[in-house]
Amino acid sequence: MKSGKLQTAIVGATGYVGLELTRILLRHPHLAPPLFLQRSAVGEAPRDLAEVFPVLSGNGGHPLQALSWPALKRQGVELLFLATPHEVSRTLVPEALAEGLRVIDLSAAWRLQRSEHRAVYQFQDEDSVSAAELTEQAVYGLPELHSQRIREARLVANPGCYATSVILALAPLIEAGFVDKERGIISDSKSGVSGAGKEPTARTHFVSVADNFSAYAVFNHRHVGEMVEQLKLDASVLTFTPHLLPIPRGILSTIYVYLNRPVQAKDLEATLRSFYGGCRWVRIYSTPKLPQIQSSLHTNYCDIGFCLAEDGRRLVLVSCLDNLLKGAAGQAAENLNLMYGWSKEAGLA
Amino acid sequence: MKSGKLQTAIVGATGYVGLELTRILLRHPHLAPPLFLQRSAVGEAPRDLAEVFPVLSGNGGHPLQALSWPALKRQGVELLFLATPHEVSRTLVPEALAEGLRVIDLSAAWRLQRSEHRAVYQFQDEDSVSAAELTEQAVYGLPELHSQRIREARLVANPGCYATSVILALAPLIEAGFVDKERGIISDSKSGVSGAGKEPTARTHFVSVADNFSAYAVFNHRHVGEMVEQLKLDASVLTFTPHLLPIPRGILSTIYVYLNRPVQAKDLEATLRSFYGGCRWVRIYSTPKLPQIQSSLHTNYCDIGFCLAEDGRRLVLVSCLDNLLKGAAGQAAENLNLMYGWSKEAGLA
Amino acid sequence: MKSGKLQTAIVGATGYVGLELTRILLRHPHLAPPLFLQRSAVGEAPRDLAEVFPVLSGNGGHPLQALSWPALKRQGVELLFLATPHEVSRTLVPEALAEGLRVIDLSAAWRLQRSEHRAVYQFQDEDSVSAAELTEQAVYGLPELHSQRIREARLVANPGCYATSVILALAPLIEAGFVDKERGIISDSKSGVSGAGKEPTARTHFVSVADNFSAYAVFNHRHVGEMVEQLKLDASVLTFTPHLLPIPRGILSTIYVYLNRPVQAKDLEATLRSFYGGCRWVRIYSTPKLPQIQSSLHTNYCDIGFCLAEDGRRLVLVSCLDNLLKGAAGQAAENLNLMYGWSKEAGLA
Amino acid sequence: MKSGKLQTAIVGATGYVGLELTRILLRHPHLAPPLFLQRSAVGEAPRDLAEVFPVLSGNGGHPLQALSWPALKRQGVELLFLATPHEVSRTLVPEALAEGLRVIDLSAAWRLQRSEHRAVYQFQDEDSVSAAELTEQAVYGLPELHSQRIREARLVANPGCYATSVILALAPLIEAGFVDKERGIISDSKSGVSGAGKEPTARTHFVSVADNFSAYAVFNHRHVGEMVEQLKLDASVLTFTPHLLPIPRGILSTIYVYLNRPVQAKDLEATLRSFYGGCRWVRIYSTPKLPQIQSSLHTNYCDIGFCLAEDGRRLVLVSCLDNLLKGAAGQAAENLNLMYGWSKEAGLA
Repeated sequence: MKSGKLQTAIVGATGYVGLELTRILLRHPHLAPPLFLQRSAVGEAPRDLAEVFPVLSGNGGHPLQALSWPALKRQGVELLFLATPHEVSRTLVPEALAEGLRVIDLSAAWRLQRSEHRAVYQFQDEDSVSAAELTEQAVYGLPELHSQRIREARLVANPGCYATSVILALAPLIEAGFVDKERGIISDSKSGVSGAGKEPTARTHFVSVADNFSAYAVFNHRHVGEMVEQLKLDASVLTFTPHLLPIPRGILSTIYVYLNRPVQAKDLEATLRSFYGGCRWVRIYSTPKLPQIQSSLHTNYCDIGFCLAEDGRRLVLVSCLDNLLKGAAGQAAENLNLMYGWSKEAGLA
Repeated sequence: MKSGKLQTAIVGATGYVGLELTRILLRHPHLAPPLFLQRSAVGEAPRDLAEVFPVLSGNGGHPLQALSWPALKRQGVELLFLATPHEVSRTLVPEALAEGLRVIDLSAAWRLQRSEHRAVYQFQDEDSVSAAELTEQAVYGLPELHSQRIREARLVANPGCYATSVILALAPLIEAGFVDKERGIISDSKSGVSGAGKEPTARTHFVSVADNFSAYAVFNHRHVGEMVEQLKLDASVLTFTPHLLPIPRGILSTIYVYLNRPVQAKDLEATLRSFYGGCRWVRIYSTPKLPQIQSSLHTNYCDIGFCLAEDGRRLVLVSCLDNLLKGAAGQAAENLNLMYGWSKEAGLA
Repeated sequence: MKSGKLQTAIVGATGYVGLELTRILLRHPHLAPPLFLQRSAVGEAPRDLAEVFPVLSGNGGHPLQALSWPALKRQGVELLFLATPHEVSRTLVPEALAEGLRVIDLSAAWRLQRSEHRAVYQFQDEDSVSAAELTEQAVYGLPELHSQRIREARLVANPGCYATSVILALAPLIEAGFVDKERGIISDSKSGVSGAGKEPTARTHFVSVADNFSAYAVFNHRHVGEMVEQLKLDASVLTFTPHLLPIPRGILSTIYVYLNRPVQAKDLEATLRSFYGGCRWVRIYSTPKLPQIQSSLHTNYCDIGFCLAEDGRRLVLVSCLDNLLKGAAGQAAENLNLMYGWSKEAGLA
Repeated sequence: MKSGKLQTAIVGATGYVGLELTRILLRHPHLAPPLFLQRSAVGEAPRDLAEVFPVLSGNGGHPLQALSWPALKRQGVELLFLATPHEVSRTLVPEALAEGLRVIDLSAAWRLQRSEHRAVYQFQDEDSVSAAELTEQAVYGLPELHSQRIREARLVANPGCYATSVILALAPLIEAGFVDKERGIISDSKSGVSGAGKEPTARTHFVSVADNFSAYAVFNHRHVGEMVEQLKLDASVLTFTPHLLPIPRGILSTIYVYLNRPVQAKDLEATLRSFYGGCRWVRIYSTPKLPQIQSSLHTNYCDIGFCLAEDGRRLVLVSCLDNLLKGAAGQAAENLNLMYGWSKEAGLA
């Protein structure tokens, strides 16, 4: 750690998540400015991140360099962030760990313990021994559930954005035994367009999204595996429907649960508040107030509220977060802070 | 009917629904240009509808006149549209019927048969004999369910926009006995801002809505009464959650249903297609294609699609419509066409 | 003209302009349903236009067929619409005319009389005799300026969307001699995203456009040639700056002019009203009222308003239209109506 | 200055500017948490700022207290921010100064030196001696022009958002003598809706703004006085047209200038860069790159770029900023930092 500051590097800083991660790391009090890595030195590639994101200009350079393990070693990098497609992370993570780096991977490559959940990704190295070992080592980077293991982790698998919003809303109530799993749980989730990535497609064209709203990937979304693993649910218990909102960023999940027995709202609220007692980045709303996407945007909070029917049995939870922060880069910074014993607010407040 | 054209009038043409209704009536082949009525001749009131909606200018005048029953009689009005608040409709409808007019009321004033559903509206005349008689006479103006009664109706209670999207998606499958009511039905519905009306409020301010998304009126929305009456459900079976979309118009309802027994998608599709066989303004999508709001905007269609889980038991229905057309003014025109035996497309194609 | 209805065909119906043109032609009282042509029968190509635009479904089929001159002849096509890239129009127009078809070309291929204005397009056939002949034959399809020549035209070059908004605002005042050309004319124009076409690019990605606004192609936009040719201006007199608005459709041009001498607002208004006296699709606003994009959307109007400084010399004109209608497909229908002597409202009202 | 931290207070924290100012002051390293003041202790008034802006919750309380000069003295307040309507600032500023406070006023109350420019505001105290004295004392808080006087100021009149974007783009070129004032200067400016304030009106209703764009206050906007005073222009030289963009925040001004003689782009760029040499919060773009609103959002930068016509005489400048930051709260923080000799980045980086 040169001059007391940790040297980090990012692969994939040119994406939407990469930009937010860059902003956080640049203002983080315990970090040297991160290195920005590209997987291949393409002739036409940008030389500075500010060419891709003009908003970054005027604050000194952000040179992009080719990814090279010897160079990283020379430059004193200790921790690597991967904001890359999952196939790329499957390749880079073993190499990085072999080089002695700690890794926070923002892709889905190492989030899933069960092979039936990984099947949808069709990983090339699925059957290798080393992949199995890494899978076991990898810690699911949801600080509210796994802070102890994250502290020690060499490889943190940063959660998906939808998954974060759903797991955080449900975990306390499932753990407390309130939820009637037999009747099924439904999460009707809505995300802004940055969640679909930066590649221009017919689906992300402005004219396709504006003045529109649509469901997609019904019974078929890849984040469901994370949700049911973390919530210890049978896959058939959870119905998850993602939708595309005509906004740049933000997620709101409306979650429908039936309770085992009639419950009072104050008991639910107490359960939520107790579960997240020491947690810096979850805010519980007092019923009947509900969070809105706007209130969590540009923050690292996951906001959770609920309404209970008069019968005390039907429960609607609403969970909001900024998909690029608490749903990705902000949560990655939380994990970093845990791994190095820093304040929960470092880089995030 | 002067010169073979029916003379109609609109109270409330200055609202969002009123504008759409005006456009439809102006191009309707069997109608004389409608009269535009204001409830009181206010000094500052606009004199022509084009002052309120400049988009209407250049097509001749649209003079606004004070509502007066004798004047309507002199002008040969036979049918009255009310695009007014429900309290106003409670007052105007009895007067209009007494004058011998037929009425299509776009408010919620006469939609509900059961007093416990009306309670939320706190109608002043709730206990009067005449209100009870009118309630019984009023026909719920959903053409796909009640075309026969609408034909004869003197008073049509035009359905709510959310209610239309939910009832049309569910009615065929409930009637066919597929739905497991015991496990509950959930409609997670999303509407554009015009559904909240034209009055400027903190909630409809651009900065409050843009880049945002929110749930509201959870377990508490007034349209639920219509839905359960029309679908013949116990109130506790249906959980309905409305949300505010950052778009001007359009509704999408994502509806969650459990089936009584494992079913094949083709049987569900056949049921839907059969139910809406003769219906001009419902489009059934072939699974797994789902409608989007954009595809129904500026049309009178209600678009319905669905996805079925592999277990054949969990069903997600998606229903889209334009809240100002099929959800209001367009459906009113359908009812008009039924009441006078005209083509289903008149004014709408 | 089979059964009294004109048979037309469209090449390029799968674009944004194509969709609007399709809607107009389908409801046009004097037309048979148009044929939808594709330039090559690609294996993966859609078979029906409703696959591309689901909003069209439910109204009968819209089969896409390969473009073949003999087939068009057999099917009785008399007039061809081209909503194609300009290079394609340079190839197809001579072929179509040789087949005896009349053509309305919505591209920029045949709009420009002067070679220095065409230079920017780098047409392959620029030096050919036949191209020169066709250029001379082609009539610039702005009905307010060239209705007489359009009536007789075999080839109508439909104007650009920006150009329409600028030319219509300026033509009356330049013709009347009010404008001080020495001091320069500025058009600061703003367009919705559909003007950039349907191809997904980094620039049309929702996240790039939403919450944003930008100028582009400053001193460099291809529509300037049309404007200065039609307004008979030296190129250096007109400064035109286009901008990208975060809306799907609509253009507003704010145009700055200095007058030769102090003038009264009423004289300017009289000049505008007189110039557009017989014109169905231009609306003049009375100062100081100004048109907004919303008021012209989904209509074929060009709306024009203005404000005059107290000195009577500085003039700001505001011109609005729907880029897909008056700026493209609607104006094409106007030209069609002129070419066949039909009502100005046919298909458009 | 208790414990080395300056105690400040805000009147008007419940508006859009107030929220941004609150965020800045809360993270400012040299400030104690600010006090939040309300002008009258209304019964229904919110008790904590987080009730108005839920995004603030979870970070400790932000109690709202009634404005009382003795209380402020007791609480050790040294500097007061006013984010209030201009009439209110005309009343509060003299009182605050009399109490020995320094004041940064974000309204237009004290920005204008010349009475003909103030006329539009119709200040009640326009003719008073004390108002004249304060007007003379007040320093126009544009740090790039007046840093020396701001350092000493007791009363800083924080510039208008439009004015900041226009003045910063033009000042260097006018000062350097490039601009041909005879031919006139035009600023075609566009602002997001937060610039219109938080009050719900027909004009700020979501449905009025979305999918729309409009000019307003042509030849009639109150910011023009600031612009011509600061740029030392005759009022008739500058034509300023504001427009309403369908976005929550951000301003882009497209500014048209004719140069006295043909100039090379590199000389213009050198002039701009030289003028803003020591300025932390202005970024000059290298032609032909132009700033976009998105690149300045959520930053305190004013971004300036330009394009020059081939004739070297016609110049288009583009100037962007976030109206709530560099256009208001951020600039107020710059002024604070100057007044206390702190880093230019304090609270802003």
